[in-house]
Amino acid sequence: MAPGPSAQTDQKVLERISADLTARFKGVFAPETVEHYVFESYTALARSARIRAYLTVLTEHFAKDRLTALAQSTGAAPKDVPEVLFVCVQNSGRSQLAAAYLRHTAGPAVHVRTAGSAPAAEVDPAVAELITARGSDRAEDYPKPLTDDVVRGADYVITMGCGDACPIYPGKRYLDWDVKDPATAPDRLEAIAAQITAEVDALLAAIRTEKAEGATT
Amino acid sequence: MAPGPSAQTDQKVLERISADLTARFKGVFAPETVEHYVFESYTALARSARIRAYLTVLTEHFAKDRLTALAQSTGAAPKDVPEVLFVCVQNSGRSQLAAAYLRHTAGPAVHVRTAGSAPAAEVDPAVAELITARGSDRAEDYPKPLTDDVVRGADYVITMGCGDACPIYPGKRYLDWDVKDPATAPDRLEAIAAQITAEVDALLAAIRTEKAEGATT
Repeated sequence: MAPGPSAQTDQKVLERISADLTARFKGVFAPETVEHYVFESYTALARSARIRAYLTVLTEHFAKDRLTALAQSTGAAPKDVPEVLFVCVQNSGRSQLAAAYLRHTAGPAVHVRTAGSAPAAEVDPAVAELITARGSDRAEDYPKPLTDDVVRGADYVITMGCGDACPIYPGKRYLDWDVKDPATAPDRLEAIAAQITAEVDALLAAIRTEKAEGATT
Repeated sequence: MAPGPSAQTDQKVLERISADLTARFKGVFAPETVEHYVFESYTALARSARIRAYLTVLTEHFAKDRLTALAQSTGAAPKDVPEVLFVCVQNSGRSQLAAAYLRHTAGPAVHVRTAGSAPAAEVDPAVAELITARGSDRAEDYPKPLTDDVVRGADYVITMGCGDACPIYPGKRYLDWDVKDPATAPDRLEAIAAQITAEVDALLAAIRTEKAEGATT
């Protein structure tokens, strides 16, 4: 009836991650808050994960990123550059393409996050291949569920196929891009990527304009 | 670019819910913790919700239940009866059938929660109809994602088709029931319900035996 010890959740690893992040966010979040975030982030990723080998590594990244976003939204952590959040359904195609291209084009001038309303087990292999072929970084391309904290931490929220799922807060720029899902139209991946590239270029131009206007007023 | 006021997230309602739950969990959780739970619970339900009219009402229930489970797991809230958690994929069929039947059969002798690894937008209408026809209560039958807190608060965790998604902690009873998903076998719903009924009867007998043994030792 009881599972073997090897099946048990990596509680010790998650506790070590909690301790590390508690030290990192000292004075911002209580240890209790950080631990909740770590364990809930683990379960959130485990819901849709197929490969479990990297679950604790991804949990560390996800929890740290969520806590950073939350700290940014309250002013407790610095926000040096505009924060852009791309949200699609599976967080495995459109949002990943947009994020990879924006990171590649804008470099350190913006910070990018992604999420999905119904995250897939992994990034669409054809999308991953295309991102790599374009020379973009794939370091942060694991699918994850949309959470409140990353919306709060964002300046620009771009939804693709999931607008209703996203909390709407004042003071943010919301855009809904009408882009087909490569999961249901795999033969149109190149066209979808081209459309996203054009949208991202326009977005980056708008961000730069707003930043320049903000600097002069 | 900015959404109209009607599109904005019900921030005031969520803040009222946070204040109510903060008062309820005074001395157990910090206001910050409660507020995170409320807003994250809202976004978690919004990810898969199709009808948004009840979103804040369901958020209040979901956040309260999660905080209760977490408080129970730390001993900060009483656990008067065994806590049973049913988890399936969509939280719209198997886990709902099992929960409705166990609540109906055991009455206040056990407390039941449900969750899903990939929650649907609503309970399967055929399943809902069957539950009603059996005279069971449908008060808590909204699909919701599996979270860490409800696992921690459980004494018995029963998975159906989603065993890998569920955190494994020591000191709990884990059962994995091999039950077909009515979503993919709608013509077999009656047989599935009969199998779940038999499993629940056996589970309840085991719970009663363990309770009696615990009382005599």
